[in-house]
Amino acid sequence: MALIVQKYGGTSVGSVERIRNVAERVAKFKMLGHQVVVVVSAMSGETNRLIALAKEIQKEPDPRELDVLLSTGEQVTIALLAMALKDLGLRAKSYTGAQVRIVTDSAHTKARILSIDENRIREDLASGHVVVVAGFQGIDEAGNITTLGRGGSDTTGVALAAALKADECQIYTDVDGVYTTDPRIVPDARKLDTITFEEMLELASLGSKVLQIRSVEFAGKYQVKLRVLSSFADEGEGTLITFEEDSMEQPVITGIAFNRDEAKLTVLGVPDKPGIAAHILGPIADANIDVDMIVQNVGIDGTTDFSFTVHRNEMKKALDVLAMVKSAIGARDVIGDDRIAKVSIVGVGMRNHAGVAGMMFKTLAQENINIQMISTSEIKISVIVDDKYMELAVRALHQAFGLDRSPAA
Amino acid sequence: MALIVQKYGGTSVGSVERIRNVAERVAKFKMLGHQVVVVVSAMSGETNRLIALAKEIQKEPDPRELDVLLSTGEQVTIALLAMALKDLGLRAKSYTGAQVRIVTDSAHTKARILSIDENRIREDLASGHVVVVAGFQGIDEAGNITTLGRGGSDTTGVALAAALKADECQIYTDVDGVYTTDPRIVPDARKLDTITFEEMLELASLGSKVLQIRSVEFAGKYQVKLRVLSSFADEGEGTLITFEEDSMEQPVITGIAFNRDEAKLTVLGVPDKPGIAAHILGPIADANIDVDMIVQNVGIDGTTDFSFTVHRNEMKKALDVLAMVKSAIGARDVIGDDRIAKVSIVGVGMRNHAGVAGMMFKTLAQENINIQMISTSEIKISVIVDDKYMELAVRALHQAFGLDRSPAA
Repeated sequence: MALIVQKYGGTSVGSVERIRNVAERVAKFKMLGHQVVVVVSAMSGETNRLIALAKEIQKEPDPRELDVLLSTGEQVTIALLAMALKDLGLRAKSYTGAQVRIVTDSAHTKARILSIDENRIREDLASGHVVVVAGFQGIDEAGNITTLGRGGSDTTGVALAAALKADECQIYTDVDGVYTTDPRIVPDARKLDTITFEEMLELASLGSKVLQIRSVEFAGKYQVKLRVLSSFADEGEGTLITFEEDSMEQPVITGIAFNRDEAKLTVLGVPDKPGIAAHILGPIADANIDVDMIVQNVGIDGTTDFSFTVHRNEMKKALDVLAMVKSAIGARDVIGDDRIAKVSIVGVGMRNHAGVAGMMFKTLAQENINIQMISTSEIKISVIVDDKYMELAVRALHQAFGLDRSPAA
Repeated sequence: MALIVQKYGGTSVGSVERIRNVAERVAKFKMLGHQVVVVVSAMSGETNRLIALAKEIQKEPDPRELDVLLSTGEQVTIALLAMALKDLGLRAKSYTGAQVRIVTDSAHTKARILSIDENRIREDLASGHVVVVAGFQGIDEAGNITTLGRGGSDTTGVALAAALKADECQIYTDVDGVYTTDPRIVPDARKLDTITFEEMLELASLGSKVLQIRSVEFAGKYQVKLRVLSSFADEGEGTLITFEEDSMEQPVITGIAFNRDEAKLTVLGVPDKPGIAAHILGPIADANIDVDMIVQNVGIDGTTDFSFTVHRNEMKKALDVLAMVKSAIGARDVIGDDRIAKVSIVGVGMRNHAGVAGMMFKTLAQENINIQMISTSEIKISVIVDDKYMELAVRALHQAFGLDRSPAA
């Protein structure tokens, strides 16, 4: 008998029929003798509907009240799922975040979990109940309702699994696991049976979007066994996210991530002297613009070009900020380009293998794809290319690194 | 400076625009220097939408989970109203029933309020906030979410006014006060400036539907000054519900209530002996059918006819029960009639005036309306008539008792 925490996202509970399907899946695990805690999101579309309603009332909705509003989304789902479970003859009980006492800090709309009182859930599990918990929400010390931000239901699932010392935390989604890359772009993309936490972190932050990055960090910190599965397929083991690098030989590259969310800003001809990065990025940070990649080359003739990427929606804002500081930093010009894409190869295996970067650049060169920016970390290499080459780059790299072949082969 | 509790029903908060109107009305009271606590219902239609959703999942939704589900309706409204108040530059804070700690018993879907912790609200009022509270809901001692049943938001308003010792509890609705009868039937119907609690209780239970009967009882018990007003009209003092019979002369009759919700059942030719009423009504009660009027005539030749009324929807069920007990009680026959209407005249003045019943019966006789059943209490006389005469009966009585004339005239 195991204690399993299952998390179902908005699509998995998006209709009465799908809620029934979730109940049936939960029932199967219960029949096998497991104890089950289920974490659910709001029905798909509901959170957006509520946000739109709020914005009709107040252009920038008050964060405290927005949390009161948005938390109703999951509350509807927990009640409906508990009913569906009871309709199958199971014992079931729903809890809001406040009822569990998922205590968070007071940062409304992006709160962080401080503690979870798991006693009530344990009692219910001991008396044979399925416990259904609202994801995404909590309560602060003063009793105000808080939410964890988009994707926060994953975090709730992992945090509950950690608090309950669950045997496994299963994240049900609309894909059946983590793939070497997006199968819509590379038909040969292969589902991974396992992936390390570090790789998952890099893939998640790079846009694979299977799992919320905070939940992965959380799982790593508390050593929660995390598994990604499909709530639509009946079979399959999904992808298990492991803490330790496997003792068996690792493939060099595990997966390829990509996105078109970013824009590149280049400050041309700035004096190559200490403090210039701070002079450029300080005002950007003050304007609350997040920066992703940053590249500065060694200067020639005393000046250098400085490039960085921001979210595509913030390019205009970033350009406005740079226009204001341009003369102060003595730059020749400032240009923005939002027709770029970022492609990254990720794998813990590259630690022990030289030549991975060379292989990546050679592959792109063979396809005549110009690399605009390069950024590397221990287990990841990212490049910025013209966005029209994105799919081509991903396919070429997928084949070059043999991701279509099973590692056992 | 007064402390005012205002309650707005579902129609008054039924759209973004109406929520804004409520915020503006609240702002006016705040500008006059009053402290304001606002209790709101779910946006109109929302509770029915949620119930329909629940019934799709479970034919008879689990009461605990239904309360978790339904309580989201008011939670949406409190957040939106607090946003609208903030948008007007006011300080505002919303609270669910659980957050206030409106503690109820554990009778899900029809819980009763046991206690209210008003400290947090007092603190917020002292610091200049408008406090917005979700009506209709509370929490039991074990922390389960409960609801007070339909119309429970009125009860929340009155209970909060009692706990806070508010100067007045204003119930905003879509009518501008309590009328002598329904103006749609009698165009001369007159708005009452005041009405006693007892009269209000009789009128509410008889179908005037302006105020929830439980909230009126509550207000009487805790001596809360209750006023019914329109949330759509800008002017008007509404109707004040008073505890004490006015020292000034009371009109004989205050109002006329009526409904077509009932059906009449008659058990013919039962032996006229002790215990017969219990033999008939016992099985009816066992079948959970509520009985309203009961009439038994003095028997002739050892048998009597026994009549009572039930809700129209339960006539068939009641007939089935009677069919089973018919032979056991030795009745000749059982008949049901759902083409009846109940018309009642109400007024504390009838205590001191003889001949009110006679006047009522004479008036109906003049219109050739046959009376099928009569039932009287200290301040009310109800008759059952053929339902096609209902409007005629109401109009004739309204005129006969001079309800179209102001009492001062």
